[in-house]
Amino acid sequence: MAAAPPAPAAAAAAQQLRAAHGEAADAGVGDLLVARDDAYGAGGVLIDADALPSDPAVFADALERSVQAWRAAGKKGLWLKVPLSKAALVGPAADEARGGFAFHHAETDYVMMTRWLPQGAPSTLPPNASHQVGVGAFVVNERREVLVVQEALGPLKGKQVWKMPTGLVHQGEDLLAAVEREVWEETGVRAAFGAVLCMRQAHGFAFGKSDVFYCIGLHTTEPGQQPRPCIEIEAVRWMPLEEYVGQHFQRGVPLYEEMLDRCVAWAEGRYSGWRGAKLQAGMWGRERMDTLLWGRDDGEAAEAGVGGPGAGARRSEAAATAAAAADSPDGSGARPAAL
Amino acid sequence: MAAAPPAPAAAAAAQQLRAAHGEAADAGVGDLLVARDDAYGAGGVLIDADALPSDPAVFADALERSVQAWRAAGKKGLWLKVPLSKAALVGPAADEARGGFAFHHAETDYVMMTRWLPQGAPSTLPPNASHQVGVGAFVVNERREVLVVQEALGPLKGKQVWKMPTGLVHQGEDLLAAVEREVWEETGVRAAFGAVLCMRQAHGFAFGKSDVFYCIGLHTTEPGQQPRPCIEIEAVRWMPLEEYVGQHFQRGVPLYEEMLDRCVAWAEGRYSGWRGAKLQAGMWGRERMDTLLWGRDDGEAAEAGVGGPGAGARRSEAAATAAAAADSPDGSGARPAAL
Repeated sequence: MAAAPPAPAAAAAAQQLRAAHGEAADAGVGDLLVARDDAYGAGGVLIDADALPSDPAVFADALERSVQAWRAAGKKGLWLKVPLSKAALVGPAADEARGGFAFHHAETDYVMMTRWLPQGAPSTLPPNASHQVGVGAFVVNERREVLVVQEALGPLKGKQVWKMPTGLVHQGEDLLAAVEREVWEETGVRAAFGAVLCMRQAHGFAFGKSDVFYCIGLHTTEPGQQPRPCIEIEAVRWMPLEEYVGQHFQRGVPLYEEMLDRCVAWAEGRYSGWRGAKLQAGMWGRERMDTLLWGRDDGEAAEAGVGGPGAGARRSEAAATAAAAADSPDGSGARPAAL
Repeated sequence: MAAAPPAPAAAAAAQQLRAAHGEAADAGVGDLLVARDDAYGAGGVLIDADALPSDPAVFADALERSVQAWRAAGKKGLWLKVPLSKAALVGPAADEARGGFAFHHAETDYVMMTRWLPQGAPSTLPPNASHQVGVGAFVVNERREVLVVQEALGPLKGKQVWKMPTGLVHQGEDLLAAVEREVWEETGVRAAFGAVLCMRQAHGFAFGKSDVFYCIGLHTTEPGQQPRPCIEIEAVRWMPLEEYVGQHFQRGVPLYEEMLDRCVAWAEGRYSGWRGAKLQAGMWGRERMDTLLWGRDDGEAAEAGVGGPGAGARRSEAAATAAAAADSPDGSGARPAAL
């Protein structure tokens, strides 16, 4: 890792760092940018975004001095969050002669930049988000018809392809809520989660990210619902299961054949897939409910005959009950008896 | 959506756009930045990063004129990719009076900025990557012991917690390869994928992103392997399954109890979980192999008695065979007979 800094330089740097770290001084006047050590314990430095000087020239001088001090103090990874309102600081931060930072990730109102200081040691800075998460909704109604759409935009536009509604899970959105939302937004149909049927991971999607896609079985919440094309949808209809299987536009592609087979097996009650529910997952005083997807013991599903959209409705209620029980103070409702 | 532009302005803008779009002219001399329409068909404009002028003042003038022209032409979403080498352009791009762009996402060597032009219509620009993907390795050896580690960094540092090896899946990395890599990097043990046991989604992880976590059962590839602590690991050992269950540090937390229960059920041969394999998924002349995770029919797993780490080894071979068959020209090896 980083070589030990020469003692005098380290002492001077430490003094400067003591003066700068954690103090809300005006960094435009002080010698160094305001910063603090990260909590991970691996030599990271978080530069205080709120205390960044607005003037690019003042910032550039302070950044150059700060990088020298952090290097002398044996720091490793530097994190610089530049708000959109101070975007003019990005130029000097990236300047090899001043900051030498690279980009890490960005959200609408800021860009995060990083610099890895140790010479010859590979960076251990964590990567930015690597995946988008998508859902596909295999919705079966009371007449064993499948909900299919034609897309008005994107690569399938104008191809006359009838496919299941699909969409992206938003950051911070629950997977099971996302699939019900997508069905509603695209078709106006109200459907409820039944089972997770399979999952696909692939690479090279939007902005070079990888993609995980959950194929999810849903049942309509009430009979007789008429779909209507909504957001980015050209046409929508109910299609008999047999017709859906017959026109399958991905025929001959092994992965999609397998995916279709899992859908059909679920629709025919031969396959339970995985349950999904929100369960208490808080630890160390943090309250949180996370989503778990999981299967039954091999014999259990077969004996109970739990497969199929109708059973999905029953399971969905059971999952809701389990989630509600998990809300109880001791969470015992969702704890397996064996443990 | 966007109001129709006044006819004369639109005609002038169209003329300017015809001159600028697709031509590799020097944008510092021309009136507008070089750009092209995106392929999605929703009114997006992609500004050519290679043709961006280097001088911030020249860029700011060209950007301001270009935004006016695109607005007049009824364009909606503008995409500006600024390379790290031209980071000085970020300031003017974000300036309300010149570009008015916000950040969208970033990778090491560039930041993507966007501007949504229609007044009053909500942005339909796709979001940036929303999730990180993690794996947990439940490795069982020939003596029914579980591979456990103590972490040298992070929130569990110094807590004496023995846990399964975990880590992040890299962008572009296959899920099943990632879990085998993590085990090797953290412990020096060679283990092979057996089954996916369950999946958890949660929110508020690094950089505010959501997280999906796959709990995966693995078996050691050969007996008698001695683990050694490697990257960011303080200690590592084999722990008898009963002891692992007994010391479970997440005891009483419903989600983690359920997760542990799935691990134990798999180790005891009662639960198959989901298979995983790379299958051909290419369409429209594109060759690609994607990863599919999927379950068997309810009766099938129970009859075959496929659960457990030993069976995992057999299933892993079967999956490899299926993947190899999928490589055959007609892909028939992986196609369900029923279809």
